[in-house]
Amino acid sequence: MGADSPRTLQRLDALRIADNRLPVELNSRGEAIMESEARHDFLHQCRAIVGASHALTNAYDTAPYLKDWSGRYQGQALAVIRPGSTEQVAELVRLCRAHRVAIVPQGGNTGLAGGATPHGAAPCVVIQLGRMNKLRKVDAVNNTITVEAGALLADVQAAAHAAGRLFPLSLAAEGTCTVGGNLATNAGGTAVLRYGNMRNLCLGLEVVTADGRIWDGLRGLRKDNTGYSLRDVYVGSEGTLGIITAAVLALFPEHGCKVTCLAAVPGITEATTLLQAAQQRLGSNLTAAELMSSAALAAVAQEMPQVRLPLAQPRAWMLLMELSASSFQDEGRQQIEALMAQAIERGLATDVAVAASLQQAQDFWAVREAVPEAQARQGFAIRYDISLPISELRRFVDESDAQVASLWPDMYTVTFGHIGDGNLHYNVRSTSSSSQNELVQRREKVDRIVYDLVQSVGGSISAEHGIGQAKCHELRAHKSAVEMDLMRSIKMALDPDGLMNPGKVLSLG
Amino acid sequence: MGADSPRTLQRLDALRIADNRLPVELNSRGEAIMESEARHDFLHQCRAIVGASHALTNAYDTAPYLKDWSGRYQGQALAVIRPGSTEQVAELVRLCRAHRVAIVPQGGNTGLAGGATPHGAAPCVVIQLGRMNKLRKVDAVNNTITVEAGALLADVQAAAHAAGRLFPLSLAAEGTCTVGGNLATNAGGTAVLRYGNMRNLCLGLEVVTADGRIWDGLRGLRKDNTGYSLRDVYVGSEGTLGIITAAVLALFPEHGCKVTCLAAVPGITEATTLLQAAQQRLGSNLTAAELMSSAALAAVAQEMPQVRLPLAQPRAWMLLMELSASSFQDEGRQQIEALMAQAIERGLATDVAVAASLQQAQDFWAVREAVPEAQARQGFAIRYDISLPISELRRFVDESDAQVASLWPDMYTVTFGHIGDGNLHYNVRSTSSSSQNELVQRREKVDRIVYDLVQSVGGSISAEHGIGQAKCHELRAHKSAVEMDLMRSIKMALDPDGLMNPGKVLSLG
Repeated sequence: MGADSPRTLQRLDALRIADNRLPVELNSRGEAIMESEARHDFLHQCRAIVGASHALTNAYDTAPYLKDWSGRYQGQALAVIRPGSTEQVAELVRLCRAHRVAIVPQGGNTGLAGGATPHGAAPCVVIQLGRMNKLRKVDAVNNTITVEAGALLADVQAAAHAAGRLFPLSLAAEGTCTVGGNLATNAGGTAVLRYGNMRNLCLGLEVVTADGRIWDGLRGLRKDNTGYSLRDVYVGSEGTLGIITAAVLALFPEHGCKVTCLAAVPGITEATTLLQAAQQRLGSNLTAAELMSSAALAAVAQEMPQVRLPLAQPRAWMLLMELSASSFQDEGRQQIEALMAQAIERGLATDVAVAASLQQAQDFWAVREAVPEAQARQGFAIRYDISLPISELRRFVDESDAQVASLWPDMYTVTFGHIGDGNLHYNVRSTSSSSQNELVQRREKVDRIVYDLVQSVGGSISAEHGIGQAKCHELRAHKSAVEMDLMRSIKMALDPDGLMNPGKVLSLG
Repeated sequence: MGADSPRTLQRLDALRIADNRLPVELNSRGEAIMESEARHDFLHQCRAIVGASHALTNAYDTAPYLKDWSGRYQGQALAVIRPGSTEQVAELVRLCRAHRVAIVPQGGNTGLAGGATPHGAAPCVVIQLGRMNKLRKVDAVNNTITVEAGALLADVQAAAHAAGRLFPLSLAAEGTCTVGGNLATNAGGTAVLRYGNMRNLCLGLEVVTADGRIWDGLRGLRKDNTGYSLRDVYVGSEGTLGIITAAVLALFPEHGCKVTCLAAVPGITEATTLLQAAQQRLGSNLTAAELMSSAALAAVAQEMPQVRLPLAQPRAWMLLMELSASSFQDEGRQQIEALMAQAIERGLATDVAVAASLQQAQDFWAVREAVPEAQARQGFAIRYDISLPISELRRFVDESDAQVASLWPDMYTVTFGHIGDGNLHYNVRSTSSSSQNELVQRREKVDRIVYDLVQSVGGSISAEHGIGQAKCHELRAHKSAVEMDLMRSIKMALDPDGLMNPGKVLSLG
């Protein structure tokens, strides 16, 4: 596991790797390249570790791994390496370190912030973990599953289900994204209200550290107060501190009962009041609370007419809520029905529907799931993934909407998201179809409106998508100097050579 | 907030403070003392910051803060300082840093591992946060409460209740312990099964860093993926990285309904099987699962005859479970009754009782709560606070009990704890009342049996009490070199001068 002394972890060399000790030169575009001999030697050793067929170097093979799915980010790498074991990952990291080659860890490449795409001028490799997809162990008594980082989220959900258990993380990319990526970005989704983010679902980790050692922290414990929570340092660090290679995840009882309801609400204040009433009545059995603005619903109606809108309330917002429990079907339904009746009485809702069948419940969810797609079909928008104290949602949306509209009368917003978590997907767009360029030019000003308001109400500029390379600049602008310094200290402590996913999260140097 | 450059955080000076640049000399017992002039100057400045009446120096005043409640740990300090604001804490830290005086943060001084008691030879002050006990803000819409570190846990619970909300952390010392201590030790207790440890209940923190700056991370957000989770670095770090001065904590709906039941079970396997059945049936509405061995029950019967034992099953273990929900009272009771009937049928339980009144429920809990006290009255025991995968509880107890008994026929174990979290309070004692000295001598061997078995089944040597000064040695023995190195790296990154609570958690140098 490497003969490096512990002290090497603490070296305080500059974090930039493009210094004069590196085997790099610059090409005509100012990008760093390795000397061909060093490169040849390095790739030869990569192949020796993983086998020639798992070290991809030709452009056709590597292309899918070098740009993100949206096409917004595109990078270069010496190779895309697909290791088959944790030991191979550790060997690769030591090799990269010896050659001062940077490392971009990658899972399903479904991220929304460019965190898995190479960035910048440093010579790097993509370490793609897709081959490490074993589900190592299900422990139904301990309610845990031990999986490798490259396992697909959907496969973990299926394995849990096969054991009569629930793995609750649920998000749009679940058929393609990997557990490693979910951990690296602390993924969210639609089940956070009850179960928390990926951080809350992770009990233990296996990590290859930046100096190529293996930390075996694969503990399946609910309580473990033995020193600093390294697990929580690596979760959400977006591959900038080490490479997560496996994890122990928590499982839960499956839900035998579900009651899904939809309420047309006049606005955000009514939605949050109704949410509170639902939480008081249903407690932790309230497992989802999703909000859609009237503009979001109009987008679905226009772009995806095949999706049925259960409540015809043209100017209303829609609040979807779901109760899930192992049992309590009868009382659950009674409670939801009483809640909805009260909502109408109190003027919190103008129309309500409680799904009478599984099919109806799916129809309700279909509306929510159609929103991102309908939005995308309407063309370019400036998109935000923000979170706010729930008590500030209304103020933020009102003020931001008003400021945007007062500057540009053609602009409006499409808002939806996980209201129970205070997480809004807030999208600014124009009624004029020909103004994409203009919108792009307006982005900086819109950013200022949105992010300054987010900051003023104590919100977050990235609720669930992370920082990646998309928001490094905003991160610096919004975090205090103290917080940035603390984060940099941790980066320097755990990745002193700055080889782990450079140009992501912290924009150093 | 200090003119220190960010780089100072990364200084790699030796962590020991007793080096030759310090204004210390050694007294006849080899303890470091400050030269009287430096000491005089330092204390003068302390008084200038907090006011003379809040800088305690005479032995009578400082005594209660210099030993832990059990009397096991006792230390020395130049002074006990009781700051009244975060700014004062920051000033004190900068002053201590300038004088190279170590800092021992202290809350309610109810810890079980000596973490809040001065340790070792370095000149230090205790910074006692009891005056900083403001409940800054309750936000009932966002379900959060913002409190200062010195607030009593019981006061936070009461403030939540007054707002119609629940703050679920619950433990024996709740009338005396403080939120800051709960955060620093990542406190557990009886509500972890449903709500998690203190870590899970904390949304944001305010921390005075080791270089005397204030990190304002008081965010009340459920989702915030903007860089490394500093919150999780400080929570559970036992005052060794900085001083937590305030926090935003999550609130939950109160429980309108509770159903409490007690089952006499033949052994641990039956208890864990019944626990699983209860989880399948009740999901997250199962909010407590506490186990007591027959020896624990016998101790209660013998030492505290006023406590009524509801089920007379002399050789049985007892499993207490509780369902809590906002509503669902009828169906909840039906579900519990069906569960208990099935338990008898399947041979998982030999007798069961479902509380018919609040009084009965309290009687059931009274048994569980009497166990630690009854135990203490029986005299000296070697105590362990361990956690294990739930699937390994049986194997651990069987093997450990057998090994102890085979070495010393007079020894037996008293076991109880939070079985739903895999957390056992495992106590080894002797039937002979005169053998305390002998027991102390056996401790090392018993440690080896218990901790080696814990390690072999992937358990933790400290489930909820932390490391403090009590378990530094065991921590080193049980963690891998990689994990210790990573923790040391974090310590050196965030407290490069080693002034924060030296001699705790990591035993450095």
